Amino acid sequence: MDAEIIAIGSELLTPNRQDTNSLYLTQRLNELGVEVRFKSVVGDRMADLVLAAKTALGRSDIVIFMGGLGPTEDDVTREAVAEALGLELKRNSDIIAELYRRFAARRMKMSPNNEKQADVLAGAEVLPNPNGSAPGQFLEAQFGGARRLLMLLPGPPREINPMFDAECVPRLRSRLPEQHVATRTLKIAMVPESEADARVAPIYKRFADVQTTILAGAGEVQLHLRARAESLEAAQKRVDELAGEIEDELDDLIFSTAGESLEQIVGYYLQMRGATISVAESCTGGLIGERLSSVSGSSRYFVGGGIVYSNELKTDFANVPPRLIEQYGAVSKEVAVAMAEGIRARCGARFGLAVTGIAGPTGGTDEKPVGLVFHALADGRKTEVVQKRFPGDRERIRWFASQQALDMVRRKLR
Amino acid sequence: MDAEIIAIGSELLTPNRQDTNSLYLTQRLNELGVEVRFKSVVGDRMADLVLAAKTALGRSDIVIFMGGLGPTEDDVTREAVAEALGLELKRNSDIIAELYRRFAARRMKMSPNNEKQADVLAGAEVLPNPNGSAPGQFLEAQFGGARRLLMLLPGPPREINPMFDAECVPRLRSRLPEQHVATRTLKIAMVPESEADARVAPIYKRFADVQTTILAGAGEVQLHLRARAESLEAAQKRVDELAGEIEDELDDLIFSTAGESLEQIVGYYLQMRGATISVAESCTGGLIGERLSSVSGSSRYFVGGGIVYSNELKTDFANVPPRLIEQYGAVSKEVAVAMAEGIRARCGARFGLAVTGIAGPTGGTDEKPVGLVFHALADGRKTEVVQKRFPGDRERIRWFASQQALDMVRRKLR
Repeated sequence: MDAEIIAIGSELLTPNRQDTNSLYLTQRLNELGVEVRFKSVVGDRMADLVLAAKTALGRSDIVIFMGGLGPTEDDVTREAVAEALGLELKRNSDIIAELYRRFAARRMKMSPNNEKQADVLAGAEVLPNPNGSAPGQFLEAQFGGARRLLMLLPGPPREINPMFDAECVPRLRSRLPEQHVATRTLKIAMVPESEADARVAPIYKRFADVQTTILAGAGEVQLHLRARAESLEAAQKRVDELAGEIEDELDDLIFSTAGESLEQIVGYYLQMRGATISVAESCTGGLIGERLSSVSGSSRYFVGGGIVYSNELKTDFANVPPRLIEQYGAVSKEVAVAMAEGIRARCGARFGLAVTGIAGPTGGTDEKPVGLVFHALADGRKTEVVQKRFPGDRERIRWFASQQALDMVRRKLR
Repeated sequence: MDAEIIAIGSELLTPNRQDTNSLYLTQRLNELGVEVRFKSVVGDRMADLVLAAKTALGRSDIVIFMGGLGPTEDDVTREAVAEALGLELKRNSDIIAELYRRFAARRMKMSPNNEKQADVLAGAEVLPNPNGSAPGQFLEAQFGGARRLLMLLPGPPREINPMFDAECVPRLRSRLPEQHVATRTLKIAMVPESEADARVAPIYKRFADVQTTILAGAGEVQLHLRARAESLEAAQKRVDELAGEIEDELDDLIFSTAGESLEQIVGYYLQMRGATISVAESCTGGLIGERLSSVSGSSRYFVGGGIVYSNELKTDFANVPPRLIEQYGAVSKEVAVAMAEGIRARCGARFGLAVTGIAGPTGGTDEKPVGLVFHALADGRKTEVVQKRFPGDRERIRWFASQQALDMVRRKLR
């Protein structure tokens, strides 16, 4: 079965607010084997909401309405759904009594507009709301000859989340075939999306029952695999089979198979080997250190290093001979190597990792254009160096450089 | 005119990802006097996307499709819109040539699947994409007898945002009635949202014609002001009047009145004074250096510094006497002061900025709990030190610490 989530409220159509409830509900629905196929946001206009409700009821088995159940003029969800389904609303006296009790308990007078919160769709079950005044509603209905499950839920997260867990999940579970969903995420560093896809598409196309989604960021491609089956074992088996074949194809391009970040993986490897690392960062300005130290427990393998932005600090903190900078320039293979070896020695670490480059937007020349970055990794025996020309703006070039540098450590330790 | 935004991608229907591009586009559309009336998210299924496109074209004047323009099998936006409108796609040889040029410039072989990015809707204008491979498309079309404006835009924020500004805004402006909207954003550091709101609410409530929205993040509160009027001058006047009164109330708590980030403001001040700064970072691990150096041109005032994660490096790079660490511990007022003074001396900078603390989740004690951070700023005469206990997780604590440290520099230089 497929679900559709409609968030209601004009404030969710401004530049400053966003629906986030749907993420929580999606997780719960996925656990029940239900896929969310559409999400939408609609304002408080009755006509717009009726239209959205009809569209959703026309295409999705389960339709969840979030928000618009309060007492104000803007709260029109009940009316809109009633109109879309051609059902009556009946004012429920138990809910009215409960509303009065609620206000009395807080020593407040209830204004009459609150009573509209007691309007219930004909045939709907009322879902109690221990955290707010508007109850929810659950309804099994026919629309265009198809059976639909509808839920009308309140907007505030602290009301909708517990209500969904306590009232909706059990009702859905009893109406759904038993379903099990398994997922797996594979992450790849420093490979273009098109290349990754070209290599793995022939594989995942043979797994029609596993949904594969490719996500690409700067220097990282993620493959999200997801399968549904009658048992968790069966679903897991299919996901694992596909993951295994993709791993055979991409081999050590894959850095993570369980959702870890590149800095986490580098941390695991360093810890496993009992090794330490230090960094000398020029154009990345601290980004590599920030990423390494973002991992809890990183002080066991990350000793620190130098943000050697100026040439003087390259010499003072990373032992780079000034004549090397004069001869080759601060952005050069030679200086990158010297930085990695120097910071390693200065910090007494097993590894020294260094980056020097031109992040732009200014400072580029024909010979050394914006995006040119040298990455070096020293281990005391030999020093590896990689030259890259990254596209994009300053932020992206710096991210790419940090990604490349961390991936060099990963490959070295693998 | 009303607009509808459709975000495309199955990953946006999972519990882990969310459309955020629509917020930026909504802001721009609002500035043109266009309201966003519906937003929706659709997966990569062709049939679903065709359905969503038809629904949107049936009800909204402007329909914006975001994402699904890449080279992979999952990228079906072009095909779906063509089918919804009953238009042909034509492969554009200029785009193909540009794609080959792009790959060649990066010394990469282009896989043939990239060519589908050159498929253009009949009658559409091609929108160049300087930040990615897939160009956008702009089309004026008829649907069900009504005139519609359609845009097909790439998904990544760094591609869609500049493309929308450079290509879509002028095309929309020339087709829309003239509208004038003035906005202003005031940013405040290290003040709780409730305190900021309590102080400014009595002011903005007197400006019924200016929409005021308060947004709060870690260590930062933003006040977004927005007015619409028959002329830009009239709108600007009201926004400026409100901003002026708020500035009188909050005074130097406000760090930015034109959208700048805290690191940009610190950069302005340093450059204005011809001063330089160096950092010694323990628990932030490079984050402050990363933020300072994220600003283009920062090499004029940021010399670098030390990521002094280990105690040895605190001594070696920031001249902290080992006995100080023994006596007071690495997370202490005394060590923070020594770090700031030491890094200033070592780097020959006008200012030395230092942070040491417990970012957690482990490593806290009763005496020195998780979230305890010392921030110090040395200028050669006196050294200022601020102790804070920040709430939240590791990431949030580190961000708070960087925000506090940068704000100390701002206040010093103001």
